[in-house]
Amino acid sequence: MTVELVCVGTELLLGNIVNTNAAYLAEKCALLGLSCYFQTVVGDNQERMERTIRLAVSRSDIVILSGGLGPTKDDLTKETAAEIFGRKLVEDPHTRERILNYFVRMKKENITGNNWKQALVPENAIVVDNDNGTAPGLILEEKGKRIILLPGPPNELKPMFERHIIPYLQNINSEGIYSKMVKICSIGESKAETMIADLLEAQKNPTIAPYAKTGEVHIRITARASDEEKAELMIKPIIEELYQRFGNTIFTTDENVTLEEAAVQMLREKGMKITTAESCTGGLLAGRIMNVPGASEVYQEGYITYSNQAKEKLLGVRAETLEEFGAVSRETAAEMAVGAARSAASEAALSVTGIAGPDGGTPQKPVGLVYIGCYLKGRTRVEEFHFTGNRSKNREYAVARALTILREEILKYE
Amino acid sequence: MTVELVCVGTELLLGNIVNTNAAYLAEKCALLGLSCYFQTVVGDNQERMERTIRLAVSRSDIVILSGGLGPTKDDLTKETAAEIFGRKLVEDPHTRERILNYFVRMKKENITGNNWKQALVPENAIVVDNDNGTAPGLILEEKGKRIILLPGPPNELKPMFERHIIPYLQNINSEGIYSKMVKICSIGESKAETMIADLLEAQKNPTIAPYAKTGEVHIRITARASDEEKAELMIKPIIEELYQRFGNTIFTTDENVTLEEAAVQMLREKGMKITTAESCTGGLLAGRIMNVPGASEVYQEGYITYSNQAKEKLLGVRAETLEEFGAVSRETAAEMAVGAARSAASEAALSVTGIAGPDGGTPQKPVGLVYIGCYLKGRTRVEEFHFTGNRSKNREYAVARALTILREEILKYE
Repeated sequence: MTVELVCVGTELLLGNIVNTNAAYLAEKCALLGLSCYFQTVVGDNQERMERTIRLAVSRSDIVILSGGLGPTKDDLTKETAAEIFGRKLVEDPHTRERILNYFVRMKKENITGNNWKQALVPENAIVVDNDNGTAPGLILEEKGKRIILLPGPPNELKPMFERHIIPYLQNINSEGIYSKMVKICSIGESKAETMIADLLEAQKNPTIAPYAKTGEVHIRITARASDEEKAELMIKPIIEELYQRFGNTIFTTDENVTLEEAAVQMLREKGMKITTAESCTGGLLAGRIMNVPGASEVYQEGYITYSNQAKEKLLGVRAETLEEFGAVSRETAAEMAVGAARSAASEAALSVTGIAGPDGGTPQKPVGLVYIGCYLKGRTRVEEFHFTGNRSKNREYAVARALTILREEILKYE
Repeated sequence: MTVELVCVGTELLLGNIVNTNAAYLAEKCALLGLSCYFQTVVGDNQERMERTIRLAVSRSDIVILSGGLGPTKDDLTKETAAEIFGRKLVEDPHTRERILNYFVRMKKENITGNNWKQALVPENAIVVDNDNGTAPGLILEEKGKRIILLPGPPNELKPMFERHIIPYLQNINSEGIYSKMVKICSIGESKAETMIADLLEAQKNPTIAPYAKTGEVHIRITARASDEEKAELMIKPIIEELYQRFGNTIFTTDENVTLEEAAVQMLREKGMKITTAESCTGGLLAGRIMNVPGASEVYQEGYITYSNQAKEKLLGVRAETLEEFGAVSRETAAEMAVGAARSAASEAALSVTGIAGPDGGTPQKPVGLVYIGCYLKGRTRVEEFHFTGNRSKNREYAVARALTILREEILKYE
């Protein structure tokens, strides 16, 4: 079956926002085994919208419309879709009730008249409840063609799609696509690709696709099968093969697990606590670790030490080290890690010191030079990096590398 | 004049990447005064691509195609566009030379045969040099219609568009669009909208559009005029009117200045240093401040204090305060801010303590409860917030609010 996406919104045409809905819907549809050949963006103009939807319906089995379901007179998507399938709009009492409850929950008192416009639905439409807003989703079926209308805000569209539209689409489309993600760190993208070149060449079903992320490589294995169990049987040997090749550089096979979650989980299992001492990343590394729910079990204090004085005072870095080797040096990174672990009384510590840019570089120590230190139960390791991005990218890469080094060191400590 | 975007790429149809090129091109075209009514994404399939481009050419003056200019046999955009305008492909010696030089510069030795495919251009095309890759851009003109072909990778497309395509488009389209951004904090989106409801109602040229950002409201003023000077004269009285209404809650009228940059600049002007003491945001606030180039002038050390022990040890929060009011309390936030300023010997300090979720909430102190403290030269202020997002959103909002409070306190200190 084919699906086509039509996203409605002037703010998309003006480039005020990036069309993340299209990427989200396209990925989900691909996983459902639906082929998507066209995506279109159109504004809140009835004639152009009608032309666009008619074209989409003529060439695709399912048309997913997002946006333009709001209460104002500019919101025309529902009206236009209803007209194309020759349906009248009628009030849906259930939706009217839900809108009322929504306003009560949000403690808003003045429900303006146009809000009730959202309770109007095309005759014989399947009404899909919106748990995060007032405009319901709608499904129209007509002579083997389907139009699905979704609200534009991603925080309404995504939960509605997950909860209601995916089961609906699974039901009408028997052969599905199932996939697993293998996430790798410690190995660069081009090396990882070379290591699976033969698999990439030979693939058919399942397919294998590598994606480069900041400091990580993700490999998606996708199988087309009639049910999940069969798909899993097809995917399993490939995951085993990848483990043969990548060993413990694979940090998860769970799509939703991040590198920091994997690292925090390892610390938790070993009963270790960690701290951080950051110069150029200034809190970003700690911030990423702390974004893991429950990170407080393994992380209780950390230090941001930009000035030499702070490095001496909070971490006990020796003045002579700073004097002789400078703040951005292998020696300082090592003392920062050791000192942080001592101050926080933790088994592990990560330190980052470097020149993120745009200023502060010298011929000896150029912008992008970063030292990352890792202390773990008596062992200290320091790595030198030369990043080539802007300030923000260099800091992001440093954080990713620090987490990778931490993971490697915990793995060594078996 | 009208412009239409056609982005070519299977990875867009599969949702593997977000279409940032479309947002970039749409915004730039809007600023050039070109009206964009349609954006389409299509894959590397000759028939579907041809249908899409023909439709685009039939309804828009300028069609900008991006992607599909690479060396492989899947890359068909150039061939398809040439066919639509009835042009043959011929080798361009200048481009062949540039491809050769590019490979020398990149120290790549094996130039495979298909790379030379990129030196083929449609007859009579305007060839646009690519400074960051091998596929040149191309402009085809035919009977008042124009097709512009751009490479897909954003790091090639953007510089090419800035350097070569914008001047070309300015030249063919005399009336431009010019805009200014007014950025506001301390005022919520709906209040800000109410405060300019009359302006929003009355607008024609210039137009005014508010955008809600995390903890900020941005108002874009856009004028259509024959040159920049005229546009500025039209925009100026509106900016003055906005200053009348919003006063010093406007933190910048520079599109590129962030809230943290504005705050760092104010600290710099006052010769003040700042530190941070973070619990639930765990380094994010420091990380955002430190992303400002040169932030080290005003920020030299900071503390991440998750455990009570760390709050006592690093910040001198009193055990009795933690005992009596708890770690997430107005009193603890105040002592954290004061203690941090004392430890870092800085004039200002921000503290954050709260329950980011998903766990850790109680009926008295639910998930989303966050206290933000601000110490500034002897004065301490604490604000209580109830955020309603997930862990990650709650932390982002807390950081934005902290920066806003800091700015307000510096403004009071005149």
